[in-house]
Amino acid sequence: MAKSDKINFSTPSGFPEFLPSEKRLELYLLDIIRGVFESYGFTPIETPAVERLEVLQAKGNQGDNIIYGIDPILPPSRQGEKDKAKETGSEPRGLKFDQTVPLAAYIARHLNELTFPFARYQMDVVFRGERAKDGRFRQFRQCDIDVISRGELSLLYDAQMPAIITEIFEAVNIGDFLIRINNRKILTGFFQFVGVAESQIKACISIIDNLEKIGEAKVKQSLETEKVLPEQSQKIIDFIKINGSVDEVLDKLNHLATNLPQAEEFYSGVTDLATVITGVRNLGVPENRFCIDLSIARGLNYYTGTVYETSLLGHETLGSICSGGRYEELVGTFLGEKMPGVGISIGLTRLISRLLKAGIINALSATPAQVMVVNIQEDLIPIYLNVSQNLRRAGINVVTNFDKRPLGKQFQLADKQGIQFCVIIGSEEAAGKRASLKDLKSGEQIEVTLENLAVEIKNKLH
Amino acid sequence: MAKSDKINFSTPSGFPEFLPSEKRLELYLLDIIRGVFESYGFTPIETPAVERLEVLQAKGNQGDNIIYGIDPILPPSRQGEKDKAKETGSEPRGLKFDQTVPLAAYIARHLNELTFPFARYQMDVVFRGERAKDGRFRQFRQCDIDVISRGELSLLYDAQMPAIITEIFEAVNIGDFLIRINNRKILTGFFQFVGVAESQIKACISIIDNLEKIGEAKVKQSLETEKVLPEQSQKIIDFIKINGSVDEVLDKLNHLATNLPQAEEFYSGVTDLATVITGVRNLGVPENRFCIDLSIARGLNYYTGTVYETSLLGHETLGSICSGGRYEELVGTFLGEKMPGVGISIGLTRLISRLLKAGIINALSATPAQVMVVNIQEDLIPIYLNVSQNLRRAGINVVTNFDKRPLGKQFQLADKQGIQFCVIIGSEEAAGKRASLKDLKSGEQIEVTLENLAVEIKNKLH
Repeated sequence: MAKSDKINFSTPSGFPEFLPSEKRLELYLLDIIRGVFESYGFTPIETPAVERLEVLQAKGNQGDNIIYGIDPILPPSRQGEKDKAKETGSEPRGLKFDQTVPLAAYIARHLNELTFPFARYQMDVVFRGERAKDGRFRQFRQCDIDVISRGELSLLYDAQMPAIITEIFEAVNIGDFLIRINNRKILTGFFQFVGVAESQIKACISIIDNLEKIGEAKVKQSLETEKVLPEQSQKIIDFIKINGSVDEVLDKLNHLATNLPQAEEFYSGVTDLATVITGVRNLGVPENRFCIDLSIARGLNYYTGTVYETSLLGHETLGSICSGGRYEELVGTFLGEKMPGVGISIGLTRLISRLLKAGIINALSATPAQVMVVNIQEDLIPIYLNVSQNLRRAGINVVTNFDKRPLGKQFQLADKQGIQFCVIIGSEEAAGKRASLKDLKSGEQIEVTLENLAVEIKNKLH
Repeated sequence: MAKSDKINFSTPSGFPEFLPSEKRLELYLLDIIRGVFESYGFTPIETPAVERLEVLQAKGNQGDNIIYGIDPILPPSRQGEKDKAKETGSEPRGLKFDQTVPLAAYIARHLNELTFPFARYQMDVVFRGERAKDGRFRQFRQCDIDVISRGELSLLYDAQMPAIITEIFEAVNIGDFLIRINNRKILTGFFQFVGVAESQIKACISIIDNLEKIGEAKVKQSLETEKVLPEQSQKIIDFIKINGSVDEVLDKLNHLATNLPQAEEFYSGVTDLATVITGVRNLGVPENRFCIDLSIARGLNYYTGTVYETSLLGHETLGSICSGGRYEELVGTFLGEKMPGVGISIGLTRLISRLLKAGIINALSATPAQVMVVNIQEDLIPIYLNVSQNLRRAGINVVTNFDKRPLGKQFQLADKQGIQFCVIIGSEEAAGKRASLKDLKSGEQIEVTLENLAVEIKNKLH
């Protein structure tokens, strides 16, 4: 067989793939995340990877993303029939770069088939033509939830988000994390009070959002290039640095709210934040899992109320591991209807890649198999097959080894893949309806009747 | 908010999406399929949606697929900086049209990190620029398993495939199905014996593969246009129509094998088929689930040995619901190494869409929530939140209703989404640490203590 040695078979730059042990970790995390999402009644949807370009560009290219357009390429043998054979879809199309624009389109497409408030989760891969650098991928999986309403949307939906984040990251067991909560109305209101021009407020919010990354001096400098006066920017810095326990910060905010003149927006933000915090507490989120951080804004301009970020304590440089917020005008785009929503997103591909690199989580074993039934005698293969099936029926994942190799090599093969148990049956064992069960972790080997084999293994697996 | 009324927000032609109740069905099926795959030790991988075009085209475009190429589109605001900002990947790239070519590339990319025999499953979406007709989609999910070996690959891996197919479709509960097994060497050997020119054999095999679709007369006619003589084509037809029980067909084949002169290929095929059948039986696959069908060939030319198709009895027009086979030269392409493999594939998106249309399976409820905690008194919301959390901790999926609506409307909202239970707590119940539990299916309403609520619901759910 000739080697196609001119072919570069590496993945295109920026398109990652996992080894089995890493993909298994991803599935393990996806199962946990899905379980928590579903426990709060979020229902799954998946939108196609491909949308009309006009849909993808409807809200502008959020965050300057480069969209990938798609175009049919005829097989070389069919180049001649280009016009005739070309697939009928001729409208410009591209790969989705997030799950929010497609959610808006999905709701528009199925408005009368959905129930509102519509709480959906979506864990698809999305595509962004970013320069491949700094752990950024061009294809990655996001785990998003959003609740969308026609009309009012209770702030208690905002309160559920920190409860969901907490459950997920406690289950994943990645160490201490802190959910930082803010409300953009508080920032907008404070900026108004300080005297920042209405037209500059969004830009200024984007700047203070970088406090942690670029530091106080640079934030001040950036604010001043946006025509914020030095004394104004000092007030802003002092404000966003307010800290303390949740109750202390709420007290300070309430105090400010009652003393600021004409601070409707500010007041409304503080009230909303207090309502959300009460909900978070009623949902039983431990006090050490959340705080109020007035410097959190989420760069994206579509957020209008509650915003969240989640830091992994001791690993703050990883950035936020789960973020989101409330928006008003994002999802109704295609219908011309106000549809308030609140949602969070976990950038799973990037998160896994960074957690693995930082040694915070480990990949799983290379196979889901827990047991290898080894092959020491060809004529016993019917027994190996039967024993394997019985173990499977008991819920155990089993590889039957069909290859003729020395027993030691078979143990090695199992061990290399992280298979903990080997079941060994020679003619003597077969005659006595017994098996030897070898635990490759402990090295221990015991004799078990075939009848008790599954139970024995299941006990040892826990 | 202005409606973007010039935007066509429908999905691009041929790119399907599911409603929540259908997506839930897909996830339910994926969970079953994954569970069976893993019980046989298949490990998950996922390759990127995008590969280099030279990789996708390395084996020719199997089945005349039209590949979608991808190209970055700059956001309108950045058109000016086209050269500078363009993402660095400039190699021609396209969307994968199957999971086999990417598997070959994956193995080449990670050869030394993988363990052989490499048994992997993959359930990604793939893209084909086909004309959207006849239930064909341009994006669809396939559930594939393959075992790949360096060197020999035992026929017992072939025998496992029908066991896996059986377990999946018995679990899915879609009625009676029949796995039709054949070996292409038997066909090739018989064609040689009949005197068909070596160069015509693959074309002839493709023709007889259509027997069920186009009927005997047309098969004969097609064979004759391939320069097969009428008496040869009659022999072929008579041969592929051999039927009877598995043992009867094997007897006839063995009889032929010993009587045909110079029938090495034929003999080898018959021996292999008999070995596979013995394995299938040793794995406990019920006799009514499989047969030998000598007309099954799988159109794709890369199959070299065992081939499978699966028919849903009474719904044969659906086509094969799970197919596959053994191949020799498919996966080693990029390495120039022979790597025999055997695999099967379920075209899940198409299968679900057809089974739903034929009424063979039903979509699930629109939400995973099993319980709605209704909202009848704002001041009791802390209790609603607490009760919801306790139910979730017991493994129940719960929606808490935050909106103020009449109780009847809340029941309607639950019922519409297929939520079976409503938990109703007014001030009296709250004081007595009780709840009313309404079963929307039966209409029955009972009083339960909050302490027993989760257990009560779990008992009723089963």
